[in-house]
Amino acid sequence: MEEVRPFRLGPGPTLKILDQTLLPETETWLEVEELETLCEAIRSLRVRGAPLLGTMGALGMAIAASSGMTTASQLALAGTALKATRPTAVDLEWAVDRAIAVAKDLSPTSRPAALWEHAMAIVELRDRQDRAIAELGAPLISGTVLTHCNAGALATGGIGTALGIVRVAWERGQVERCYCTETRPLLQGARLTTWELTKIGIPTTLLPDTAAGALMASGAVGAVITGADRIAANGDSANKVGTLQLALAAARHGVPFYIAAPTSTIDRNSPDGASIPIEHRAPEEVGGFANERWAPEGIEAYNPAFDITPVDLITAIITEYVVHKDPSRGGIASS
Amino acid sequence: MEEVRPFRLGPGPTLKILDQTLLPETETWLEVEELETLCEAIRSLRVRGAPLLGTMGALGMAIAASSGMTTASQLALAGTALKATRPTAVDLEWAVDRAIAVAKDLSPTSRPAALWEHAMAIVELRDRQDRAIAELGAPLISGTVLTHCNAGALATGGIGTALGIVRVAWERGQVERCYCTETRPLLQGARLTTWELTKIGIPTTLLPDTAAGALMASGAVGAVITGADRIAANGDSANKVGTLQLALAAARHGVPFYIAAPTSTIDRNSPDGASIPIEHRAPEEVGGFANERWAPEGIEAYNPAFDITPVDLITAIITEYVVHKDPSRGGIASS
Repeated sequence: MEEVRPFRLGPGPTLKILDQTLLPETETWLEVEELETLCEAIRSLRVRGAPLLGTMGALGMAIAASSGMTTASQLALAGTALKATRPTAVDLEWAVDRAIAVAKDLSPTSRPAALWEHAMAIVELRDRQDRAIAELGAPLISGTVLTHCNAGALATGGIGTALGIVRVAWERGQVERCYCTETRPLLQGARLTTWELTKIGIPTTLLPDTAAGALMASGAVGAVITGADRIAANGDSANKVGTLQLALAAARHGVPFYIAAPTSTIDRNSPDGASIPIEHRAPEEVGGFANERWAPEGIEAYNPAFDITPVDLITAIITEYVVHKDPSRGGIASS
Repeated sequence: MEEVRPFRLGPGPTLKILDQTLLPETETWLEVEELETLCEAIRSLRVRGAPLLGTMGALGMAIAASSGMTTASQLALAGTALKATRPTAVDLEWAVDRAIAVAKDLSPTSRPAALWEHAMAIVELRDRQDRAIAELGAPLISGTVLTHCNAGALATGGIGTALGIVRVAWERGQVERCYCTETRPLLQGARLTTWELTKIGIPTTLLPDTAAGALMASGAVGAVITGADRIAANGDSANKVGTLQLALAAARHGVPFYIAAPTSTIDRNSPDGASIPIEHRAPEEVGGFANERWAPEGIEAYNPAFDITPVDLITAIITEYVVHKDPSRGGIASS
């Protein structure tokens, strides 16, 4: 099986990114030598996925230092620029703040090497985290599973969070089929998740976002599992827009609804979902895709990138350390 | 204001259909001289919308008779062909059966004229029905409203069912804005409803189907209103796929959820939603649109055209005769 990797490192302090906006049609690699190249790639979703954005935050700080931004104020500026690219995924913030803490007591000349070392540690951490999440989550999955957007290798750099669980459960013979929503407007499910699952060899069925309720009502879905971009202290979870509707349909039809994410996704500073900042994206993403437009020109659009799933709709939150079962009762304090 | 009309009649026994698959980009009119031309147009959704399909059923029978299919068995064949085009909308079945009953006791030579007269009566009936539905429904709407798919003039030939209500409420100064879902996979909301609302002059906001839950959670939606393709005797309602998820999100957020449809949409022979036949369409409609493909080639897809909203999620069903409030308690027997 061909492994899916969203970025490549080296030789030396260099980063190449797989342009995810061009998948599945072409695999185009983008060379990142400047921080602004990376910031643009994050804003344009050439590289995306909450855990991977953490990794990119760490790599971005290393790239900034390598390109000569080695003073404390230059690194602070780099961090601000990185955090401003996408406001909802807390992993990005977390990784940038860690990098700044690492650099703090070092001399400017020793910062580039230290920041690359820090970034490499996060790359390796992601890999271990995904494996640990999959080990804890796989026993929960059997038969068929539905996922939204992409929480796979392309979203983490490891084997994925939600899709890592699906993959390990599949390798153990527990999974028959994975259902993927298209995930309008940017179609990460139709473009990325189908592509990943096909490479792994898992039987895959694509559905319009509108059809998930009907599919659950038909009894065909054993569980719903997604990633998360930020989990509030009470367990309310921000994830790709459309997740809330899936959680509501799952609750109605008695289908368990799981979220899988590393603990760095949990934001102790957000008491609940209402305090999570939600990114709103350009209206042009709605009413068309790529070269095809289907809405009247100039139409206004509502285009939040994320929504909040209240914790009472979540059956369990799976981290690398623990499965928080029934988190609206038990909380998520132990990880 | 330019009136939207999905078909034109005359001079003489002729029918022209506005090809709705090409909207909003071009307004192309298709001349229908043979029954098969109409059947293809219905199957391909060039003409669509449950009430309009009833009208097309009546017109199709008239066209069949005009083209020489005047014996009882030929008309039965025409009726079977028409009903087979789309199985969920009961209005089509209803109008064809009425046409066959009209022709039954007439001589073959007098059938063409009688079937055109019958079809014209249904055309006029639709117009009166839509007005009556709008009069009953408009008082329920104020501020902002969200609709799914297209239940407007393009779906009925009158002023529309759900959109007729929105239009009359707008004319009375009760409506600030109408939110339209894109309605994947065939994008009737993004293509048709936005086009109609823009012509009427109602401020319109388009959203991805995934964003309706977030919009309702934000408090921005005063009511959700849709049409229906078949309403079971207990009030369970089949409508465009995605309606169930909207009804679930509305119930969660305390937003009233209304269905507007003529009584011919109520099927006394279907005791509940489980007995309504659901059309499944070609997998190619998922994973792309028009000339754009975004999913890996050959991917399997789940593509039901409709879903069932259970009656307990419906605040009221509005027909041309009555508003059935809280239909899960009060039933829908009185119309």
